[in-house]
Amino acid sequence: MSPTDMAARRLYPQHGVVLRELGLRDGLQLTRTFPSTAAKMEWLETAHAAGVRHFEVGSFLPTRTFPQFEDIRRLISTVSQLDGAFSSALTLNERAIADALQTGVDEIVISVSATEEHSLSNIRRTRQSAIGLVSRAAGERTNGRPLICAAISVAFGCSIAGDVSPTDVLRIATACVEAGAEVIAFADTVGFAGPCQVEELCRLVVPRLFPVPVIIHLHDTRGTGIANAFAALQSGIRILDGTLGGLGGCPFAPGATGNVVFEDLVFLCERSGFATGIDLEKLLQLRPLLARELPGEPLYGALARAGPPESIRWRAVGD
Amino acid sequence: MSPTDMAARRLYPQHGVVLRELGLRDGLQLTRTFPSTAAKMEWLETAHAAGVRHFEVGSFLPTRTFPQFEDIRRLISTVSQLDGAFSSALTLNERAIADALQTGVDEIVISVSATEEHSLSNIRRTRQSAIGLVSRAAGERTNGRPLICAAISVAFGCSIAGDVSPTDVLRIATACVEAGAEVIAFADTVGFAGPCQVEELCRLVVPRLFPVPVIIHLHDTRGTGIANAFAALQSGIRILDGTLGGLGGCPFAPGATGNVVFEDLVFLCERSGFATGIDLEKLLQLRPLLARELPGEPLYGALARAGPPESIRWRAVGD
Repeated sequence: MSPTDMAARRLYPQHGVVLRELGLRDGLQLTRTFPSTAAKMEWLETAHAAGVRHFEVGSFLPTRTFPQFEDIRRLISTVSQLDGAFSSALTLNERAIADALQTGVDEIVISVSATEEHSLSNIRRTRQSAIGLVSRAAGERTNGRPLICAAISVAFGCSIAGDVSPTDVLRIATACVEAGAEVIAFADTVGFAGPCQVEELCRLVVPRLFPVPVIIHLHDTRGTGIANAFAALQSGIRILDGTLGGLGGCPFAPGATGNVVFEDLVFLCERSGFATGIDLEKLLQLRPLLARELPGEPLYGALARAGPPESIRWRAVGD
Repeated sequence: MSPTDMAARRLYPQHGVVLRELGLRDGLQLTRTFPSTAAKMEWLETAHAAGVRHFEVGSFLPTRTFPQFEDIRRLISTVSQLDGAFSSALTLNERAIADALQTGVDEIVISVSATEEHSLSNIRRTRQSAIGLVSRAAGERTNGRPLICAAISVAFGCSIAGDVSPTDVLRIATACVEAGAEVIAFADTVGFAGPCQVEELCRLVVPRLFPVPVIIHLHDTRGTGIANAFAALQSGIRILDGTLGGLGGCPFAPGATGNVVFEDLVFLCERSGFATGIDLEKLLQLRPLLARELPGEPLYGALARAGPPESIRWRAVGD
């Protein structure tokens, strides 16, 4: 195996379910307030102690416009000191990629839209130009680090262009792999997907992209987030994104607030027999920090409200 | 076919999806405030104009303790005047059944717990005694009206007894059919089910109870409500319960607030190719009435927040 293939296998083993917590990146894109660096470090450490291993910790963006991500290097360093943990960061342009390559981040995420209309509106680039970023990052890194994840946004429908064809999405994903991406994420950026759409895309792409790990990134905009996650699991997906408290959304997708709730995703997986390695009760102890550090932000999540069932066996047996 | 079989077929045709709106019954069990009779009639008429046909309008209970159901006869009469609409009412004892038989209600629901512990705690009867109510109702009605629906509560797990075996649930459901029930509902009363549990039970009971119509009644207590509804649809279920705004819960199940959100259920079905006959935009016009008539009650629902997608085809093609 090449060094990048080995790294991909290390981050995303082929057994078990991986839940990636994106609150510190996707969760903070739109918020008026954001946690202090100390609180973010407590966030990472507490989630890690609960069993979370995959963290997207920020985006390499100009700190004047996006002060919430100013401490990204510090957080990458924090994650590197947590046993078995991996850091991921969003890079939307050449400058961001160059900055990311100066750090020890484990994975960089490059966003490629499924539609030309969304691409031009969201990152002011054509899709081909975004795929060019993947090539550039692959060419500039050394020793196959960091991994490159191409995140195909609006993969289940676009707020501008409308319906999106799964075969078109597969074509773009394949182009990203050819350009050097080792991981592909498919994002329901604007929350248009129902479980049937998730099934259709996953059943198409998982076997065709194999052994490239496939991530499904869902928003709960229209109440189908957890149903879509279940459909993804049923269709062979073993890596899912979420944010604590369902924080976040896309600044270019009006009304598209709310990633799928990470805590609820843990319950769904465990109740469905997929061991996550995460202690839900410990994870729920993070809620007061979220409430304190993000005043005025709505915090979603059924498990935080009702708690796990007490009288039944709901945890999956780990492998 | 017997008159009751014909009635069952009329209420629950064997094609298409039926969504039953239970807000005026399950949604009002715990609320501190409740709508005026005029507002309830507007609720029924507006939902009917949006395409809803199945309404549970209340419970036959002592009006001194449960004033929210005092106007149940008036609401049954209202539904009887709405074209193609059906009314349903909960009856928990002999007196309630006798009262219901004096009205023109289309269906009475008799609750039978899946566990002895829940039965004694919830309705202070053994399960056998509850099944006896089904026999009694079947014997006392005339010309096969109203239909009798046995609702098996805690069918996916019990807050007292813990895990519940699907074969035990099937046994109780079969006893209810033998006692005279023409319709069986399975309720996740305390919100313990994940989609795998729903699939397991539905795949067991649907073929074995056929042609008896099977209803799945879900609560969104732990965020799996819509995922469970999808699992039910995938497992052959064509009748699902919900409440507008996700109102309601079980007074004997602490924390078990919130039926699955009816509006979100409509979106799930339509986006999954199951035509509901319901105009979601028209239905959402009921939200201001809910907010006005139930001050202080949390109203859930993603569609009410985000609205249906504008740029894609998400409605099922009706048959």
